[in-house]
Amino acid sequence: MINGERRTKRPIRWAMVGGGRGSQIGYIHRSAALRDRNFDLVAGAFDLDAERGRAFGIELDVAPERCYASFDAMFAAETAREDAIEAVSIATPNNTHFSIAKAALEHGIHVVCEKPLCFTVAEALELEALSKAKGKIVGVTYGYAGHQLIEEARALVAAGSLGEIRLVNLQFAHGFHSAAVEETNPATRWRVDPRFAGPSYVLGDVGTHPLYISEVILPHLRIKRLMCARQSFVKSRAPLEDNAVTLMEYDNGAFGTVWSSAVNAGSMHGQKIRIVGSKASLEWWDERPNQLSFEVQDEPVRILERGMGYLHPATLADDRIGAGHSEGLFEAWANLYDRFAIAMEATDRGDAAVLAGLRYPDIKAGIEGVRWVETCVRSAEGGGVWIDYA
Amino acid sequence: MINGERRTKRPIRWAMVGGGRGSQIGYIHRSAALRDRNFDLVAGAFDLDAERGRAFGIELDVAPERCYASFDAMFAAETAREDAIEAVSIATPNNTHFSIAKAALEHGIHVVCEKPLCFTVAEALELEALSKAKGKIVGVTYGYAGHQLIEEARALVAAGSLGEIRLVNLQFAHGFHSAAVEETNPATRWRVDPRFAGPSYVLGDVGTHPLYISEVILPHLRIKRLMCARQSFVKSRAPLEDNAVTLMEYDNGAFGTVWSSAVNAGSMHGQKIRIVGSKASLEWWDERPNQLSFEVQDEPVRILERGMGYLHPATLADDRIGAGHSEGLFEAWANLYDRFAIAMEATDRGDAAVLAGLRYPDIKAGIEGVRWVETCVRSAEGGGVWIDYA
Amino acid sequence: MINGERRTKRPIRWAMVGGGRGSQIGYIHRSAALRDRNFDLVAGAFDLDAERGRAFGIELDVAPERCYASFDAMFAAETAREDAIEAVSIATPNNTHFSIAKAALEHGIHVVCEKPLCFTVAEALELEALSKAKGKIVGVTYGYAGHQLIEEARALVAAGSLGEIRLVNLQFAHGFHSAAVEETNPATRWRVDPRFAGPSYVLGDVGTHPLYISEVILPHLRIKRLMCARQSFVKSRAPLEDNAVTLMEYDNGAFGTVWSSAVNAGSMHGQKIRIVGSKASLEWWDERPNQLSFEVQDEPVRILERGMGYLHPATLADDRIGAGHSEGLFEAWANLYDRFAIAMEATDRGDAAVLAGLRYPDIKAGIEGVRWVETCVRSAEGGGVWIDYA
Amino acid sequence: MINGERRTKRPIRWAMVGGGRGSQIGYIHRSAALRDRNFDLVAGAFDLDAERGRAFGIELDVAPERCYASFDAMFAAETAREDAIEAVSIATPNNTHFSIAKAALEHGIHVVCEKPLCFTVAEALELEALSKAKGKIVGVTYGYAGHQLIEEARALVAAGSLGEIRLVNLQFAHGFHSAAVEETNPATRWRVDPRFAGPSYVLGDVGTHPLYISEVILPHLRIKRLMCARQSFVKSRAPLEDNAVTLMEYDNGAFGTVWSSAVNAGSMHGQKIRIVGSKASLEWWDERPNQLSFEVQDEPVRILERGMGYLHPATLADDRIGAGHSEGLFEAWANLYDRFAIAMEATDRGDAAVLAGLRYPDIKAGIEGVRWVETCVRSAEGGGVWIDYA
Repeated sequence: MINGERRTKRPIRWAMVGGGRGSQIGYIHRSAALRDRNFDLVAGAFDLDAERGRAFGIELDVAPERCYASFDAMFAAETAREDAIEAVSIATPNNTHFSIAKAALEHGIHVVCEKPLCFTVAEALELEALSKAKGKIVGVTYGYAGHQLIEEARALVAAGSLGEIRLVNLQFAHGFHSAAVEETNPATRWRVDPRFAGPSYVLGDVGTHPLYISEVILPHLRIKRLMCARQSFVKSRAPLEDNAVTLMEYDNGAFGTVWSSAVNAGSMHGQKIRIVGSKASLEWWDERPNQLSFEVQDEPVRILERGMGYLHPATLADDRIGAGHSEGLFEAWANLYDRFAIAMEATDRGDAAVLAGLRYPDIKAGIEGVRWVETCVRSAEGGGVWIDYA
Repeated sequence: MINGERRTKRPIRWAMVGGGRGSQIGYIHRSAALRDRNFDLVAGAFDLDAERGRAFGIELDVAPERCYASFDAMFAAETAREDAIEAVSIATPNNTHFSIAKAALEHGIHVVCEKPLCFTVAEALELEALSKAKGKIVGVTYGYAGHQLIEEARALVAAGSLGEIRLVNLQFAHGFHSAAVEETNPATRWRVDPRFAGPSYVLGDVGTHPLYISEVILPHLRIKRLMCARQSFVKSRAPLEDNAVTLMEYDNGAFGTVWSSAVNAGSMHGQKIRIVGSKASLEWWDERPNQLSFEVQDEPVRILERGMGYLHPATLADDRIGAGHSEGLFEAWANLYDRFAIAMEATDRGDAAVLAGLRYPDIKAGIEGVRWVETCVRSAEGGGVWIDYA
Repeated sequence: MINGERRTKRPIRWAMVGGGRGSQIGYIHRSAALRDRNFDLVAGAFDLDAERGRAFGIELDVAPERCYASFDAMFAAETAREDAIEAVSIATPNNTHFSIAKAALEHGIHVVCEKPLCFTVAEALELEALSKAKGKIVGVTYGYAGHQLIEEARALVAAGSLGEIRLVNLQFAHGFHSAAVEETNPATRWRVDPRFAGPSYVLGDVGTHPLYISEVILPHLRIKRLMCARQSFVKSRAPLEDNAVTLMEYDNGAFGTVWSSAVNAGSMHGQKIRIVGSKASLEWWDERPNQLSFEVQDEPVRILERGMGYLHPATLADDRIGAGHSEGLFEAWANLYDRFAIAMEATDRGDAAVLAGLRYPDIKAGIEGVRWVETCVRSAEGGGVWIDYA
Repeated sequence: MINGERRTKRPIRWAMVGGGRGSQIGYIHRSAALRDRNFDLVAGAFDLDAERGRAFGIELDVAPERCYASFDAMFAAETAREDAIEAVSIATPNNTHFSIAKAALEHGIHVVCEKPLCFTVAEALELEALSKAKGKIVGVTYGYAGHQLIEEARALVAAGSLGEIRLVNLQFAHGFHSAAVEETNPATRWRVDPRFAGPSYVLGDVGTHPLYISEVILPHLRIKRLMCARQSFVKSRAPLEDNAVTLMEYDNGAFGTVWSSAVNAGSMHGQKIRIVGSKASLEWWDERPNQLSFEVQDEPVRILERGMGYLHPATLADDRIGAGHSEGLFEAWANLYDRFAIAMEATDRGDAAVLAGLRYPDIKAGIEGVRWVETCVRSAEGGGVWIDYA
């Protein structure tokens, strides 16, 4: 049970790029990082508009001289300080992730980055090499994966409770962009513009979330080949898709599907994960994250509730309040940031034992997401053909 | 509102082939046909074991001399009677459907047949030609389609409430055959044996149900091409599949998916239909058939309840009891049989006007189901390739 | 598993009083009685308007001479016939139940009666005495109690799975009469008129349903005292209530509540039964009758599904179709009528063994419902005071 | 939309009494107060064990010399400082609330207190008088009331969308104390001991939560009289109850019920609020706090989702993230603490306009909770009799 005691020896000096005033994503990064006092927000390049960014930083109690006009300026100036930032979180449009992350690593700064980490596997591998060379981590904010019941799902699979895994049904299918909302809402415009969003819209923006959750729950499964069909129902979004279906064959014979959508009219997030084994299935839905459905064939469906003593100790470890009370997405993110902090500290002191026992969306997860999107797009552009995955 | 008054001038003289003692499917046919007194059960070839079939028929108040040892014997003997049967329902294993239906039509008898109607489109077209030539109908028991809220869904689509149709998400995915239950349960054995089941297991056995429902709701959509991946998770079932995913492109640009499964461990039927349009979506689940979710983007989800005055008159016409009370699958079947009866009578008197206004799973629906399975199997056997649909 | 084979030696000759054209309640009586061929509808006094009743009877294939103008005429004429009716169902307004039931019993005819059986305990006891004297049963159509999962709940309690019973939370609270619909809908008018409805509206009309279900599940509990508060939110309904809350103390120390309402705006039936024991609880909802929630403290909630092999054999005995398919209220009623038929036959041949093992809403259930309403009304009229129950 | 910008001019200097290491309630107070940087935790008397409390405070970055051994010591020492604490939160067992709150007010310190504020209305009124005299607020942590959809419910009622209010159905009925868990779990022991818990267990501990929510939603309703029946199903808890049912008549003719329980076996929190009006109902459940069911009679039920544009601006004002994402109890508490902070600042500068427009659980709410429990206990001890409420 977490009760606010710092997990690190001292707070990690931390900065943000992006996430300025009015940014939801900035707020959830800050809420998560500062929640359990593992990080101190000491610097930032919060906004493309330097003046606005500075004003916002000051409101957040960042020293005025550490509110920077750009990430370059920040990394340069900070590196020169005794109390330089040790970590940075990147909450900017997709097209800037690679260069900012690269610059941060080059300056010896740990990175937490929004997904997608970058646009190509080549770039991702470059970041991985840099991360290793500099001894600094890269964390990717697949925030939903921080919900405790994802840990429970992983534990149930590991214990063999599902039998042999057969089906992996993933979806993240909301309806908020059923209409061409980008025409009137500038905040969503960049997401459907390949210059800023990269080679895909929903595959990367939503599909990679349940994909990563599936990797957490099913660490032993490897995709063998996949195919993808994608559509641009709002025509002006082409070539970027607002809906996609991906089919996947795994090397153990399991079969997977991913439905990624922004045009599932009337649906909230609709992120659902269903794992089917030869004996039982698991189902989890991000809109009701405190429940996990465990369905053994020929037995009554069981509804597992967060916080209950029958769960795995690893699941319970991240609870912040007892069962029955609702935890939400902010707690899931805080769980991730707790692990980012532990990973940063363990990396800095070279503590392989701690790192071996720690699971978080790291550079490998970042690479995998990019690879999956890249492969899906390749399949879709080929007319929905099967592509070997590697 | 239905209250038991006959919809036909007089009861139609009706027989069954199959559906003997202990047959669930036989019971639901009889319950549906006799419910509103449009049919009289006057003859039958209920069982391969003639003695057992005769004993069962007598219990059902069928005259002993009209309990036949085989369908041939029945059609021959009945045709010679003044009060010959006018209609027959076929509830036997798949491999016999074609020959029984053909024989019935040749004897000038209306046919109600379990799906799949037959194994090949060629056979289905032969039945269609015979049906036309003889002026007798063929009804196919896609029973779920008789639920009133399917009618409501159709009415909402027809009224344009969903906008342009974009996505058709269909699934019928139960878990009852997660293990090789056929090894100990003879009643399920024939379903996984291609000699009796035909070219597919779950595609035909369960997948065609939501497919037909989608045809009812979306009469204007045409499949342009499809691809299918199928698996035999219980190895001994190969070449028949116990799980399959089909992707479909429609000629209006809509995209569809069908998940057919018998190994969705822990799930009951899991038959869910979701239709997504540019403005709104509809979702219906056969396990809670009295509710229809109507989800307009940017408005609260609405839960439509069977029997309520806000529904379309065509929806309300088939109610047997007021809102709040639960109607189930037996009522859905009875709704179908009511329409079969009306169709038989109208066909016999050549009443084109009545037929034009009547919607039921007819020979066209039967053909379509066979065509879809045939195409899916072709795609799957080709390694999951796209196949033009025609 | 029921598959339509008659449970009686021969069909019981049966008639109806009331339930004419357009009557929902008449249709459900007929559907239930005729479903499994234990009854033959051979006579009726279907309507106060004799001509209309006769026309309707003829449509139902009742012989014209056995379509009577009144119940007196019917009982008199039928008694004179060789093939006289053996049983009658009463589906008329409340104020006529007593006299019709009494007349039927006096003529030696088995009775199935809508609740409330009558208006006073004194009347109910008179019917009980007559029933014994004549050797004819009285069944009361608490139809919901026929759902199989009520049997399962009973079995779970009997097996001690809930521990000691502590709480009995009952409700039947719909919203259909939130407005004064009786002003425009004559079919509901009599229900709020004490001349026809008797001393209560919702207590008798809806509250007695879950009350009887609780008697089935908890046969060992006895009410010790109760109190009731009732309201007439639509003022013109006074003195009859359209909402009531009853609190009950049982002799084992358990505590119960019943919420009866017709003004629970926006709710369908809202009939929910929750039984809480020292170890576990059960919850059942008539709008989703195929599921029963079994909630053991400190374990995950289990959703029991109708038709599954893990249920009690007595539960499974009444299934008409496999798990996953939805059975509804019509099947529940048919289950009751099956038992009425068995009870009639066993009573006629004096088969005490069969009767001892048979549970159905009998004259005792009828008396109990009347006693409960009478006591509730007494408490409410005293200002919501506690009244000893006896 | 909240994004972490401080709502106060500067952080309020804040301390805690209780809430030491391992205390869930301490963590949620701190998470809420510090979330949006309106408070700084600068002092505390965290634990009865002074050394342990001091060690914990130091971990929370409180200066060692401001980690006090007792609340008296803290109030005395802090008052002498230039940078004295301005507010204190009380998270100790019930029996200490009154004396700590009184001492804090006497020292001119704003108070946030766990419910119940104290044991008697007399005490509560004394605190109110002191609060006025000293010009300092008292906030009570009815945390669930901070969920945004409670605000929406209030707005819908205020707009007349429900019509005239008729029924107020409240419950908070968990099952965690179905067994005598206090025998082995010391953390729950004081809750069932009247020396520490006061005159009630569940009425005060859980029942007052939905009661306060009903006061928020229905500010115009006044209880006229009530009755209460309470039980001690675990006998050793007597005279304190582990289950209670309260009936309430309101002065406008509405009727209310409150089910408070700790023995509702198998249930999580089971806090549900249903408000029934002449035209529509509202239902909210704390375990799925992002949804509000709005049920207009004769229309489909609507599921309102947190964050959607169709909600009232006052509802949306407290969102921290977009619709579809789940907010939980921590956000609800943070919403309350935001308002406590605004209220403290406005009170200190005498800003009546801000205070008039601000709704939070204040001293009035605290008094009302105590009054309700006191009256319920009086009724229960009288045998479940009606008591005028004043």
